[in-house]
Amino acid sequence: MIRVGIAGYGNVGKGVKAALSQQPDMELYAIFTRRDPGSFDGDLPMVAMADIEAWKDRLDVVILCGGSATDLPVQGPEMAAHFCTVDSFDTHAKIPAYFASMEKAASAAGTLSLISAGWDPGLFSLNRLLGNAILPQGSDYTFWGRGVSQGHSDAIRRVPGVKNAIQYTVPVPEAVEAVRSGDEPVLSTRQKHTRLCYVVAEEGADRQEIERQIVTMPNYFSDYDTTVHFISEEELRRDHSGMPHGGFVIRTGKSAVGSRQRMEFSLELESNPEFTANVLVCCARAVVRLHAEGKQGACTMLDVPPAYYACMSGEELRRTLL
Amino acid sequence: MIRVGIAGYGNVGKGVKAALSQQPDMELYAIFTRRDPGSFDGDLPMVAMADIEAWKDRLDVVILCGGSATDLPVQGPEMAAHFCTVDSFDTHAKIPAYFASMEKAASAAGTLSLISAGWDPGLFSLNRLLGNAILPQGSDYTFWGRGVSQGHSDAIRRVPGVKNAIQYTVPVPEAVEAVRSGDEPVLSTRQKHTRLCYVVAEEGADRQEIERQIVTMPNYFSDYDTTVHFISEEELRRDHSGMPHGGFVIRTGKSAVGSRQRMEFSLELESNPEFTANVLVCCARAVVRLHAEGKQGACTMLDVPPAYYACMSGEELRRTLL
Repeated sequence: MIRVGIAGYGNVGKGVKAALSQQPDMELYAIFTRRDPGSFDGDLPMVAMADIEAWKDRLDVVILCGGSATDLPVQGPEMAAHFCTVDSFDTHAKIPAYFASMEKAASAAGTLSLISAGWDPGLFSLNRLLGNAILPQGSDYTFWGRGVSQGHSDAIRRVPGVKNAIQYTVPVPEAVEAVRSGDEPVLSTRQKHTRLCYVVAEEGADRQEIERQIVTMPNYFSDYDTTVHFISEEELRRDHSGMPHGGFVIRTGKSAVGSRQRMEFSLELESNPEFTANVLVCCARAVVRLHAEGKQGACTMLDVPPAYYACMSGEELRRTLL
Repeated sequence: MIRVGIAGYGNVGKGVKAALSQQPDMELYAIFTRRDPGSFDGDLPMVAMADIEAWKDRLDVVILCGGSATDLPVQGPEMAAHFCTVDSFDTHAKIPAYFASMEKAASAAGTLSLISAGWDPGLFSLNRLLGNAILPQGSDYTFWGRGVSQGHSDAIRRVPGVKNAIQYTVPVPEAVEAVRSGDEPVLSTRQKHTRLCYVVAEEGADRQEIERQIVTMPNYFSDYDTTVHFISEEELRRDHSGMPHGGFVIRTGKSAVGSRQRMEFSLELESNPEFTANVLVCCARAVVRLHAEGKQGACTMLDVPPAYYACMSGEELRRTLL
């Protein structure tokens, strides 16, 4: 059995605990927390973060479920000094710097850290890579949604007069179709996605002003066609409490002879954090196997032989899935 | 530059030659043939199969483009005794036996052979594996088409009174939709695909009898709803000379918490052999790198770290694609 630890017990951490129950060869041993371990449900194997060293040789891998903005840049290298790790660091622009810091920490400790696992970065990256390698003359496109963006929902909640809000990122169907046609269109940000906001306003708030502040917000909304709907707190709870997401990676290109070829990978997820957790758990299995073979330092899903994700043997995979 | 040889110069072999022209780090050095090398276009680097030994240290990898029925079972182990190889062996039921024979030959010679590359087996297998690993409680479905099946086209051509024919395998749209819904339907062979045949009959042939013989043909057609259209030789040439294909691998499953999740990979190809060739070429790059690291014996695309397919460095991949 692979002995697994979890660090951070938010949506993804809870998803990882659940996901482990679907894997016959993995067992949850410890959930590290910065809060008081006694404040959690007594059935959970909570451990104070300060006691990490005592667990050094009692876990095969720790799945880091903290956020990319502030948790992982600190927690990642700290944990890599003691354990093999997997995380879902997803600030794309900062991946090279985070990789370097994890590579340094893990190499020094003789551990292995797989960073930026999940679906984007993760499975989507894998498909972008395959598309580029197999169809070198072509274009790739990533569409996200329809799904909830936490970052954009949070941005709306900071607008004065907003009590609560949720934001959906929605791919523009005409853009997806234009891409699928193989014409390799050049698409602006506005042409690819729209943003759909459901807002609960505080009583007496100026709704027109709230809407104006949302649709003109730089970085988050000003480059998009944004629609704002005002709803009640009850409607928000009833209709928008899930965390669905998904998207498409499409590569279209031409063979050297001129034939049009298209590769497409898509996800439709009722729960984004639970799916991310399922991917992290498979990556944890892969990390344990790669480390057992002597691999150390940092790596990503682009470096993992796919068979290492699966519980089945190579022979069984060839017989049943190949 | 990676020095590449091709063995077998049919549709896939020609596709490989073309595909190599799109890869900046690979060069075609030799095309092995059992025919008289002098009978080919003088621009082609044709080499008699009998002269293989002279090329032993002059190639990094040979891409085997023979057929799975009779060519590869003999040619594969012969070539693996001298070269690292890649092939597209696609008789699913015989993969374990072929793997064993290639493993034996390549291990003895210290070479590395990647077998069963392409899209199915190949990319579709990779997606079946990812689906099974990430969503262990679920079902997977593979649909092929719309596309030309050479085996079925050949079977029709053997019917008395048939001058020429082409067969398209067509996924049933309702079945694809039922699968995408996440209901995990149990589908019979007949419910998943239909077979569409365009037949050129010999003059005076009994068309009703031809149709009867096709639709009742065991293994090939009797388990399917099959439609037969009689067309002229000219229509066949004009409208059905391409080799399009494609299909879908869909995995639907539930997280441990009960959320429905769907993963889907699809291909739409104007040229099946040219796409297979593009995949083989990337696999050849991966084989050369894996062999340089000391890996020997047989392997499949399930064993290849995806980064090895790409021309870019790991650093560049993380910066641009992850």
